[in-house]
Amino acid sequence: MTKFMDVHHGMKGITAEQLEAVHNADLEQGKAEGVHFEHTWADPETGTVFCLSESPSAAAVRRVHERAGHAADEIHRVRLGL
Amino acid sequence: MTKFMDVHHGMKGITAEQLEAVHNADLEQGKAEGVHFEHTWADPETGTVFCLSESPSAAAVRRVHERAGHAADEIHRVRLGL
Repeated sequence: MTKFMDVHHGMKGITAEQLEAVHNADLEQGKAEGVHFEHTWADPETGTVFCLSESPSAAAVRRVHERAGHAADEIHRVRLGL
Repeated sequence: MTKFMDVHHGMKGITAEQLEAVHNADLEQGKAEGVHFEHTWADPETGTVFCLSESPSAAAVRRVHERAGHAADEIHRVRLGL
């Protein structure tokens, strides 16, 4: 298992309720792929959302986000962390 | 105090030791501005570094990174988080 940070653009004006719905959909869809979304952060002004996950692969993160209805624009394997 | 996620590009091949040095410089420089860097993550393959901080402003985050010798390419005020 490795940590991944994925980034979504174009989500300007996202609300707390919408972020929670997105995160819950990710958690639900992640179960089948063994992906766990630990945290998510959103900047409603620039429309940027960051998701930190533990996942077997970047491909699994991609599939989970696609199935949850919001494909990621970038997926980074953050091998280093402090 | 608000949370910020800033992003640095162009850091391909960054090592664990380099990330620790960068993070320590941020912590040290952050004291004067009241900025606390909580976490940092790096993807050496794409050269992307993410820093999560608590700061009085985006401008303070920008100044701290500049003084530490590595200006941020993006600074997002992540007003929402889960």
